[in-house]
Amino acid sequence: MEECIFCKIAAGEIPSSTVYEDDYFKAILDLSPATVGHTIIIPKKHMKDVTELEEEYSSRILTVAAKIGMAMEKALGCTGFNLVQNNGESAGQTVMHFHMHVIPRYDGGNKIVTWPQMETQSEDREATAQKIKMQLSSM
Amino acid sequence: MEECIFCKIAAGEIPSSTVYEDDYFKAILDLSPATVGHTIIIPKKHMKDVTELEEEYSSRILTVAAKIGMAMEKALGCTGFNLVQNNGESAGQTVMHFHMHVIPRYDGGNKIVTWPQMETQSEDREATAQKIKMQLSSM
Repeated sequence: MEECIFCKIAAGEIPSSTVYEDDYFKAILDLSPATVGHTIIIPKKHMKDVTELEEEYSSRILTVAAKIGMAMEKALGCTGFNLVQNNGESAGQTVMHFHMHVIPRYDGGNKIVTWPQMETQSEDREATAQKIKMQLSSM
Repeated sequence: MEECIFCKIAAGEIPSSTVYEDDYFKAILDLSPATVGHTIIIPKKHMKDVTELEEEYSSRILTVAAKIGMAMEKALGCTGFNLVQNNGESAGQTVMHFHMHVIPRYDGGNKIVTWPQMETQSEDREATAQKIKMQLSSM
């Protein structure tokens, strides 16, 4: 996609702080990170989100993410990391080219990548699960 | 693992609201959801986190997550979804059996799965990227 900033970054047309690169992905530091070392993994092919992600990418990206996370622990001293991948504007996706965040987490760090928890009743959960399950069985 | 609650759920020894199941994964509704329909995908084999996730699981789970997300959009009317996967206590992981959250998001919903953004300088980013890259090249 000519106008997509992540396509340009993946193609090397826009400079970035590159952490990792292979035939399928480029991983770069996020310009406005949540924590020091916050990285995003970008496929070199334009696909909007995980629903468009082709198998050669979907089958490989978690191996890449795990490697980057382990390298962060050794290189930066973080003690954990989050993988976050947003699909759709309502989910906070701002660039419409699939990407996965790898966010290093440090002991005593801020409370992030968390959410208020709702209380639910088992009959409501069962009804919701049935709706999703029925849809899945017709796909 | 005998004492792992997700092993017991995956084995059907503890009841759950199941959304999806195949040879590798069981997907169930989270008991304390962020939003209605919040699902977690659990591998049937005990692996602590993404660094332990074996290839037959890592290569398949995003396809399952995408299918569940698309089914949620049709079944529940959400307009997007987040995939979140936490590794380590500092990253908010509470059950030490790999799991991936699929969080449906609705228009006008709460601001969740977001974080305060830091400002960074390009030379700091470059130095951080180099540290991670060097570690990766020695793995």
